[in-house]
Amino acid sequence: MYKFRNDYSEGMHPAILEKIVDTNMNQTVGYTEDEYCLRASEQIKAHIEQPNADVHFFVGGTQTNLTALSAFLRPHEAIISAVSGHIFVHETGAIEATGHQIITIPHKSGKISADDVSEVLCRYAGPHMVKPRLVYISNSTEYGAVYSLEELKSLREICLANDLLLYLDGARLAVALTASGNDMTIADVAKYTDAFYIGGTKNGAMFGEALVIVNETLQADFKYLIKQRGALLAKGRLLGIQFETLFENNLFYELGARANSLASRLSEGIESAGVRLFVPTETNQIFLIVSHTQLGELEKHYDFEMWEKYDEYHEVIRFVTSWATDEKYIDEVVQLLKTL
Amino acid sequence: MYKFRNDYSEGMHPAILEKIVDTNMNQTVGYTEDEYCLRASEQIKAHIEQPNADVHFFVGGTQTNLTALSAFLRPHEAIISAVSGHIFVHETGAIEATGHQIITIPHKSGKISADDVSEVLCRYAGPHMVKPRLVYISNSTEYGAVYSLEELKSLREICLANDLLLYLDGARLAVALTASGNDMTIADVAKYTDAFYIGGTKNGAMFGEALVIVNETLQADFKYLIKQRGALLAKGRLLGIQFETLFENNLFYELGARANSLASRLSEGIESAGVRLFVPTETNQIFLIVSHTQLGELEKHYDFEMWEKYDEYHEVIRFVTSWATDEKYIDEVVQLLKTL
Amino acid sequence: MYKFRNDYSEGMHPAILEKIVDTNMNQTVGYTEDEYCLRASEQIKAHIEQPNADVHFFVGGTQTNLTALSAFLRPHEAIISAVSGHIFVHETGAIEATGHQIITIPHKSGKISADDVSEVLCRYAGPHMVKPRLVYISNSTEYGAVYSLEELKSLREICLANDLLLYLDGARLAVALTASGNDMTIADVAKYTDAFYIGGTKNGAMFGEALVIVNETLQADFKYLIKQRGALLAKGRLLGIQFETLFENNLFYELGARANSLASRLSEGIESAGVRLFVPTETNQIFLIVSHTQLGELEKHYDFEMWEKYDEYHEVIRFVTSWATDEKYIDEVVQLLKTL
Amino acid sequence: MYKFRNDYSEGMHPAILEKIVDTNMNQTVGYTEDEYCLRASEQIKAHIEQPNADVHFFVGGTQTNLTALSAFLRPHEAIISAVSGHIFVHETGAIEATGHQIITIPHKSGKISADDVSEVLCRYAGPHMVKPRLVYISNSTEYGAVYSLEELKSLREICLANDLLLYLDGARLAVALTASGNDMTIADVAKYTDAFYIGGTKNGAMFGEALVIVNETLQADFKYLIKQRGALLAKGRLLGIQFETLFENNLFYELGARANSLASRLSEGIESAGVRLFVPTETNQIFLIVSHTQLGELEKHYDFEMWEKYDEYHEVIRFVTSWATDEKYIDEVVQLLKTL
Repeated sequence: MYKFRNDYSEGMHPAILEKIVDTNMNQTVGYTEDEYCLRASEQIKAHIEQPNADVHFFVGGTQTNLTALSAFLRPHEAIISAVSGHIFVHETGAIEATGHQIITIPHKSGKISADDVSEVLCRYAGPHMVKPRLVYISNSTEYGAVYSLEELKSLREICLANDLLLYLDGARLAVALTASGNDMTIADVAKYTDAFYIGGTKNGAMFGEALVIVNETLQADFKYLIKQRGALLAKGRLLGIQFETLFENNLFYELGARANSLASRLSEGIESAGVRLFVPTETNQIFLIVSHTQLGELEKHYDFEMWEKYDEYHEVIRFVTSWATDEKYIDEVVQLLKTL
Repeated sequence: MYKFRNDYSEGMHPAILEKIVDTNMNQTVGYTEDEYCLRASEQIKAHIEQPNADVHFFVGGTQTNLTALSAFLRPHEAIISAVSGHIFVHETGAIEATGHQIITIPHKSGKISADDVSEVLCRYAGPHMVKPRLVYISNSTEYGAVYSLEELKSLREICLANDLLLYLDGARLAVALTASGNDMTIADVAKYTDAFYIGGTKNGAMFGEALVIVNETLQADFKYLIKQRGALLAKGRLLGIQFETLFENNLFYELGARANSLASRLSEGIESAGVRLFVPTETNQIFLIVSHTQLGELEKHYDFEMWEKYDEYHEVIRFVTSWATDEKYIDEVVQLLKTL
Repeated sequence: MYKFRNDYSEGMHPAILEKIVDTNMNQTVGYTEDEYCLRASEQIKAHIEQPNADVHFFVGGTQTNLTALSAFLRPHEAIISAVSGHIFVHETGAIEATGHQIITIPHKSGKISADDVSEVLCRYAGPHMVKPRLVYISNSTEYGAVYSLEELKSLREICLANDLLLYLDGARLAVALTASGNDMTIADVAKYTDAFYIGGTKNGAMFGEALVIVNETLQADFKYLIKQRGALLAKGRLLGIQFETLFENNLFYELGARANSLASRLSEGIESAGVRLFVPTETNQIFLIVSHTQLGELEKHYDFEMWEKYDEYHEVIRFVTSWATDEKYIDEVVQLLKTL
Repeated sequence: MYKFRNDYSEGMHPAILEKIVDTNMNQTVGYTEDEYCLRASEQIKAHIEQPNADVHFFVGGTQTNLTALSAFLRPHEAIISAVSGHIFVHETGAIEATGHQIITIPHKSGKISADDVSEVLCRYAGPHMVKPRLVYISNSTEYGAVYSLEELKSLREICLANDLLLYLDGARLAVALTASGNDMTIADVAKYTDAFYIGGTKNGAMFGEALVIVNETLQADFKYLIKQRGALLAKGRLLGIQFETLFENNLFYELGARANSLASRLSEGIESAGVRLFVPTETNQIFLIVSHTQLGELEKHYDFEMWEKYDEYHEVIRFVTSWATDEKYIDEVVQLLKTL
């Protein structure tokens, strides 16, 4: 049964695999202090145009988020996030487990606005309430949407005006930056946030996320915090090798672009088959509204995610494309939907 | 300027003060192991008809909530609370600081329903999300409302059916149980919850809350947890003396009833002066909708709490009455409003 | 049975009780924002000669320690303490519960030396280990010993040289500062530490500790942290009233001096009865080495603390004197020991 | 420069690499729910003769320890560990960051005895102290020593008699079980502990540790806790593939045995060169006492770890062998030492 469940169903991109194989018996020091990590870090800093940034490598996204956010905050400080934010919904309370409240606000396809942040700042005042200190956004969002540069800048402004940090979860940054509607560069991301991470797991890496701490006041002692959270990989080289490969020859962007292009093709096919989308397809996540009959047929052939109930007769389901998706199945799905 | 800001503006009820004075030079063991605490505990257990309950004394409510809830939960377990719940809004993230997420749901005057709890249970499933494990309610609520016995029972039912604990924050339990609309006894509270606390601070004590753990599976090692949270009072006798006094001769209920009766008089006066209430007055908190002119005049003579903006021309303010409120000022406030 | 178990067996000193009675029906704002607290705070700041210090009032010592230390440290930072330190031994892991390791070092009668701190700094290096950041001392110590000004200064020096904070637990500061062997003032304590607390509970207050944060970089948002730990007393006035009374007319020192003087009398009597001391008596704690026969007889008449096994035939026990100790029992104990 | 610094300087064993390559484009479900993980789990359960055990896969050891130990303990419960224990010394306070105190005891080459555990139980009593609840051991230890079956059983006995859990950190379990002095099987490990983990990272895996929870009362909801700590690998298959390979054809034991055999050869060579060992070599860690001249020469050619100062003229250094060590360098080191 072909899987459209997520963008990490397969192993790793062949170029990465090749590098892993080639370097396998090389000896390196541990804990991301090796030459591959150092090189990948330099490469990323040059690429984002932030020579003074710190780059740290993690195995996964929840680990990255919990380590970074708990490192940046004092105990009484809270995070503002969309109510749909991955840290709030799908990380089993990892942030709260480090002691911090997440203040949730409404969203549009996973995106939040400066106005909603502003409304929180009006409500939260004084020592009987947590102190909002950091705004968490994801790009692309949990609904596949993409922030415009203008939107990012307006969030940055309200953050600067209110002594708030801005953190961007880039688990799916590659598809965001290669979306047809995107108008920002990775250098913009770095310029307008205090910290963000570049997702590898969902973009062709075996695993791995590169956390970039742009704000220098947040950099001190960060390696201690990685180790304390159990997130310092012994054979750290594996992370360096992967990110070096992703950022050589623009593989990172190529893979994102491929996922988007397949999603776009699938999305158009779906609509042409008369099936409605739940939200517009901006990146590699496609949200469809299907009847129970359609659902039943699709389930026979494909693996995908049940998202939410739409109404008494319909469900929302999610298909995800990736660097590895076989395009033959894209067409097959559309064909099937046309027959239903 | 007379204060209607809260129900803890004065010291303690004279009967308690007298007992404190009389026992001052008695020697006792520390940490609530003294004879006063033991007696107060026995008294409460008899009164609530739960001989196997455990009673523990705390200095304040936030301390009680954070110690109890963190003791009852494993790290991945979450609390369901009204979005207006004191633990979520006004305790500076004390619960999250112990590692637990609070899942918030809508409310009516601070009360939640079994249906809203049920809706959470549908949404939260599987190890990528926190596991709802405890329902937190307050009685009276942050808006002064009172649960009916029927409502409490229906919450209890959904809890039992879903392996959820039910915890009642009784910071203002005295006014709840003596409200004209109330139909439950303290024995009902004990019967239909796993744990609850009986508020002293807001009902005539100098300070103090009595946590009752009815569910025996939650009782083990609880004293360790009190000490760990810094909540074990060295001169614990002070708590025993106060609760003994409150539960002798029904002082606890008398004081609640007095606060309610004054609130009722104030509330009726307010309405008779043509000023609208924001929510009906059920206990000792009165929420008024006032114009800016009215607000300006009231501010000259009284201290009270700004609650929220009502509309462009009106604000919601809160008056609180208590065992100590001087009724002369009740009438004075009404008079003033009538002139505006 | 007369209690020598600790210095908080009775209620409060009559002068404090009188003030509590006199002010009982006054209305005040809550949460230590009242006039009594403000006045007590000003008084203390003047007394310690630190106009820019912040003073915060707590109900108890464990609460004070856990709130302060967790507020001062980032997650990976650790505390250096004597292995006998109250925070390590007798607070049920309250500090660790806020996330921090305590690195323990040897002690002499509860005191630590700059050399032992230095040894820790040599061993702890790099991100795989916690980062020592704060030195915790108590004065008087858990064994009743008193630091000399010279010792305090040498700890301060090593702290300054190594970017370590110095924190002093003054649960028994009154007896330390009035000990015959003492050569420092409370202004010295303030001058040579980053923060310390002035103990009330063990020196005649009903309860209460005054935390003084001298180091201005540690002061930000501290009230949030008090509230988050459940340590913000609703009727905060009670704390202000007590500390105002303690620091008017030098009552604080008088009470400490009385406890010391009785301890000295008891200690001399014990030695004259041929009973050995476990450590020299410097303040109000007396540690005796008694045979099982002596122990048996003492137990019939007095309540005291079993400290530790001395050898096969002897136990160490602790007697504590206080502001409230009835001197008649001092002489009685000595008489009894002389007969054994 | 050839590295003897640790047993994870290279990538992964060729048999594992081959399996990673072969399965790379297979689609699987995420989060260790895939067929490889399920198979590896069944294999391990059969191998350790515990059909009711739960097996969970982690990327690294610190992550495994912190997730497991914090899942097993209530907030006031503490861990007993050798003062040399990895969780206490080299995990940056990861355990304390989850809220628990570690009570340290003396060790012999990293091993602890039932007597030392017993001594802790005598000292810790009552709610003012943490409650010892779990004994942590490592096998082989941080000094390369191996527990005998008798020693393990005696620890188990004292644990059972005192309601303590026994947890074994098996980061280097392979070399322990294949040591010449070893007399226990992995089934014994499972039989006499409540939980333990089987280390992959230090025994030929790319990364990975398999946590085995034998005690069924500790198994509930464990996946939530893995996710909460950021330790649930998206492409969990990578872990399953590795452990399946390790436990097919006894590769796990072969690799451990090879590391031991090389260590033994190196150790004998070192002694024959007249260089003393700091502790006897039982597994793959060799601790040498070298003069500064010897140190200087070794540093020119090899990378290894500085362990501790021995005396004014000597340092202790550590060499580690592994599945990947090139034996040519073993002989070379010995030759070099013979010339010094």
